[in-house]
Amino acid sequence: MEDLTQLSYALDTFYFLVSGALVMWMAAGFAMLEAGLVRAKNTAEILTKNVSLFAIACIMYMLMGYNIMYPGDAVSSIWPGISFLLGGDNTVEAVLAGGDDAPYYSGMADFFFQVVFVATAMSIVSGAVAERMKLWSFLVFAVFMTGLIYPIQGYWKWGGGFLDAMGFQDFAGSGVVHLCGAAAALAGVILLGARKGKYGPNGEVRAIPGANMPLATLGMFILWLGWFGFNGGSELKISDVGEANAVAMVFVNTNMAAAGGVIAALLTARLVFGKADLTMALNGALAGLVAITAEPLAPSALWATIVGVIGGIIVVFSIITMDKLKIDDPVGAISVHGVVGMWGLLAVPFSNGDATFGTQITGLVVILAWTFAASFIVWLVIKAVMGIRVSEEEEYEGVDIGECGLEAYPEFTGSRGSGA
Amino acid sequence: MEDLTQLSYALDTFYFLVSGALVMWMAAGFAMLEAGLVRAKNTAEILTKNVSLFAIACIMYMLMGYNIMYPGDAVSSIWPGISFLLGGDNTVEAVLAGGDDAPYYSGMADFFFQVVFVATAMSIVSGAVAERMKLWSFLVFAVFMTGLIYPIQGYWKWGGGFLDAMGFQDFAGSGVVHLCGAAAALAGVILLGARKGKYGPNGEVRAIPGANMPLATLGMFILWLGWFGFNGGSELKISDVGEANAVAMVFVNTNMAAAGGVIAALLTARLVFGKADLTMALNGALAGLVAITAEPLAPSALWATIVGVIGGIIVVFSIITMDKLKIDDPVGAISVHGVVGMWGLLAVPFSNGDATFGTQITGLVVILAWTFAASFIVWLVIKAVMGIRVSEEEEYEGVDIGECGLEAYPEFTGSRGSGA
Amino acid sequence: MEDLTQLSYALDTFYFLVSGALVMWMAAGFAMLEAGLVRAKNTAEILTKNVSLFAIACIMYMLMGYNIMYPGDAVSSIWPGISFLLGGDNTVEAVLAGGDDAPYYSGMADFFFQVVFVATAMSIVSGAVAERMKLWSFLVFAVFMTGLIYPIQGYWKWGGGFLDAMGFQDFAGSGVVHLCGAAAALAGVILLGARKGKYGPNGEVRAIPGANMPLATLGMFILWLGWFGFNGGSELKISDVGEANAVAMVFVNTNMAAAGGVIAALLTARLVFGKADLTMALNGALAGLVAITAEPLAPSALWATIVGVIGGIIVVFSIITMDKLKIDDPVGAISVHGVVGMWGLLAVPFSNGDATFGTQITGLVVILAWTFAASFIVWLVIKAVMGIRVSEEEEYEGVDIGECGLEAYPEFTGSRGSGA
Repeated sequence: MEDLTQLSYALDTFYFLVSGALVMWMAAGFAMLEAGLVRAKNTAEILTKNVSLFAIACIMYMLMGYNIMYPGDAVSSIWPGISFLLGGDNTVEAVLAGGDDAPYYSGMADFFFQVVFVATAMSIVSGAVAERMKLWSFLVFAVFMTGLIYPIQGYWKWGGGFLDAMGFQDFAGSGVVHLCGAAAALAGVILLGARKGKYGPNGEVRAIPGANMPLATLGMFILWLGWFGFNGGSELKISDVGEANAVAMVFVNTNMAAAGGVIAALLTARLVFGKADLTMALNGALAGLVAITAEPLAPSALWATIVGVIGGIIVVFSIITMDKLKIDDPVGAISVHGVVGMWGLLAVPFSNGDATFGTQITGLVVILAWTFAASFIVWLVIKAVMGIRVSEEEEYEGVDIGECGLEAYPEFTGSRGSGA
Repeated sequence: MEDLTQLSYALDTFYFLVSGALVMWMAAGFAMLEAGLVRAKNTAEILTKNVSLFAIACIMYMLMGYNIMYPGDAVSSIWPGISFLLGGDNTVEAVLAGGDDAPYYSGMADFFFQVVFVATAMSIVSGAVAERMKLWSFLVFAVFMTGLIYPIQGYWKWGGGFLDAMGFQDFAGSGVVHLCGAAAALAGVILLGARKGKYGPNGEVRAIPGANMPLATLGMFILWLGWFGFNGGSELKISDVGEANAVAMVFVNTNMAAAGGVIAALLTARLVFGKADLTMALNGALAGLVAITAEPLAPSALWATIVGVIGGIIVVFSIITMDKLKIDDPVGAISVHGVVGMWGLLAVPFSNGDATFGTQITGLVVILAWTFAASFIVWLVIKAVMGIRVSEEEEYEGVDIGECGLEAYPEFTGSRGSGA
Repeated sequence: MEDLTQLSYALDTFYFLVSGALVMWMAAGFAMLEAGLVRAKNTAEILTKNVSLFAIACIMYMLMGYNIMYPGDAVSSIWPGISFLLGGDNTVEAVLAGGDDAPYYSGMADFFFQVVFVATAMSIVSGAVAERMKLWSFLVFAVFMTGLIYPIQGYWKWGGGFLDAMGFQDFAGSGVVHLCGAAAALAGVILLGARKGKYGPNGEVRAIPGANMPLATLGMFILWLGWFGFNGGSELKISDVGEANAVAMVFVNTNMAAAGGVIAALLTARLVFGKADLTMALNGALAGLVAITAEPLAPSALWATIVGVIGGIIVVFSIITMDKLKIDDPVGAISVHGVVGMWGLLAVPFSNGDATFGTQITGLVVILAWTFAASFIVWLVIKAVMGIRVSEEEEYEGVDIGECGLEAYPEFTGSRGSGA
């Protein structure tokens, strides 16, 4: 029996580690998606941002974020308190002690799984502020976002704070991760302003096509794959029949929602623009994934598909609307993760009887308000101290040369020498 | 003991889910492979096709394909009958009941694993018809292929139909998946005709190089990785010593066959063309993988390598022969999956005593004939109703602009404005 | 109890197979990294090399390398002896016999895990000799490296030879894999000479930028992901509480070291060059990963981060120093894997009390001396027999056309026709 408990612990730990590795892989997905959707002259910089923000997220979360989000002794249901560094892992004795409180998987595996989540939230920001934000200002923001802003609202739900106590439901983070990331992005975009030339003097919106569609598509597929870890791992246990079935259901529903999102966005774009717009199909897949994330377990496969379909329709109109509002988001991140993230939270009560629209809306508003306000203040301070926007000349030249001192495709765009 | 049974169920379910995630990843592999092997002007469209066909495959298989392929009560060994949507998962009681019929892994995990297979079969088609087929016609075909044509022949073997009853052996689908996909592709290519300019007036064959070799190479590596799920998961169980050893053997043999295919194709191309042709090395790897798929368990590692070597030699000559026959297949999909798929089926009796050449040939002919004929009819109807080929002008301009309204690399090819 | 033993065997085997699949994926990472860091005209050739060397590594290791590295009866602690092909897998009886010698996971899974390691070692070489080495000469070297040179030094540590007996510590191969690969590369680079135009007549160093930064970034992310299998699988067991905790700790430390490497290299490059150099950030991540590989279990997460930070600083100065020494390594492989690999070996005693600086230095010198000397001789023989460097004209034209007969990006670089 003790050996069986140990083996069960090992399986749950392995399940966490594999799930975490898949979520870590989403960092590559965001990097490729965003690199594909910006112009060639801004590609190396956004790659640098994505690589660096992942590293910052890991370090800040290890130093303090994890402790804030999952405090041993919270000060209150709103303020978790601050402490530093990781403790030791579970002893064999504690595992074998039995009872509901006995740990059933490695605490380090839990940290690994959680740390890749915080990086995901931060990845959402980089796309929205692309092509005009200063690199180092962005990285300073990442320090605050991953060390403080994300962990505090994460504590409110997943760490056992007041949103959890009131019954707010968010399985894998349509709100805690995606809406949070989008809210931080929105605050940045508002302070930053639109890219030069995006909106014409007479209110017209100019399309600025991304430089590399295969890269963007690869990024989407990476995210789709990684999402099996994101949602699948959030069941938090796989080691008995009920839990194994639950994880399998989560995989199926995650996949179906993405599929529904693709088809819906493709058909919506066909009706609106008259073409099979690839970027909308990609955003549709991501919208389906974001939408199902708040509740990927309770729905049937058919309902999961419909949740994705609605997400896919919403994202197309949201992207159009953002441009009308002159909120310039080069990759559509605020629409995909923010607007559709809200839909995901509101869709929960349709399939999960434990959720109510009232608590879902409360959670939504709390996450949005906190993250937007806290981020706005941080962005504002950074703007005052070191500035957040590159010079007009650097924006025109491309931020790659100015910020990174190199070009992403030196031989292809033909503007500045061949490298040969 | 009951806890042990539950834990075993959890491990087998997890093994299915991980395998399924790897096979899902093959969708990205096909997308990258095909996007790398077509010209820049047709890249966005083939990406759109690959994303969309995966979504359609998931939805159609959930709606009806899975039920057709694995019917509760089949009408006969030829016609499984039609029913819709997925049922519930296994109860704990059913699992603990014991006996040979007790389920030992999640039914939802099984669906997830199967649904990514049907997408693989459909992915094979998109490459062969690239650069000249209408996008929406292709997607309509995908509906029929994934909802009906593939599931029916799948039932004949894996669902317990007449091919299974007669002893036809096809472990992971050299026939059921790869030959099936290639047969559907062949029917489409014949009705579609070759790309303009591919074959000269005097019978000469003109090479049309793919635009992005790193992308094609990435696609190959993704497929190689995904194949560990494809073949490894097809053992269907891992939870005891014998099964674990079997899965490990399948991993080793899958890897060795791919390695053999690379070296054989590379050397064959060196002898035939005088150069180390990268595209042939890539096709050699895939040929090795397709060849071993019908029987990756019974061979020794050495014999698996040889099966791959022969596959790698075959694929080079098959690609040359297809061009002589003016069957224009831009990515070599019919050779890789069809011709080498046949070799895979015929190689089974050399290592697996349960197989005979007679039944293998019968299975091969049945799958080929059914899929080709059914696909031909569907393509014909689609051609009559909405057409299958883009206009000559659109083909010249590239299908990206005409079908998707955007370009894959707007800043690199320099033909239509910089996007800056 | 017997069923429990079998289930435990299955879990450990599955853990090996998943880890091995992740390491196999690193082959794609090296291919993308190197393809992104060379010039467009040499891209198809380096892809061909990467695909082919992986295949050669698998075949040679199956034929003889595995037997040399893990001999049944070694001749001595220095010379393992030579034998061929793989044996059978464990019987159920042997597994259930119990005792410390009873096998607890599949031997074929072990082979699979080991074979992807040898390919990693060989992948390191291809980057350093890029853009000027003959393709077929390189592949001949791969035969000797993966069949003999790597397995012999691998035997000394992991196969139970004299380095293991003296207490040399190298958890997952900072020395056995990374330093070994770098030493072979160094020998090749010295015999090969620098690329034309890299070093000016007055000693100036000319930057030769890589053609495709997103590809290089993707390669880095693939390697980061694969490293969880590389280090995580090297714990060799996961099936009880202690082992599961250990694997989780290895995942966390691997991730933290990479994160530390990114930030350190980015800041160091900022100080030295004044820019946020993306290629240095990528090399910093890899440096962190290489550095932690010798001991990813014993450190705390904070110390693992510091090990990575030091690796990230070292790699920047090493790359600068190599250029001063006119050791031309287009992708920085010798610095990343060799110089930082040494740091990894020397860092072990700081956290692992079983290691001493004396034995670590001994192991380091032995691996470096053996691999460098043996490789130098093999390179020398190949140079005498078939030459190792392409002609000056071919180097100027790019090796893609000369060696592979095709171009990697025929439509983008605009020099030799459009392919349309």
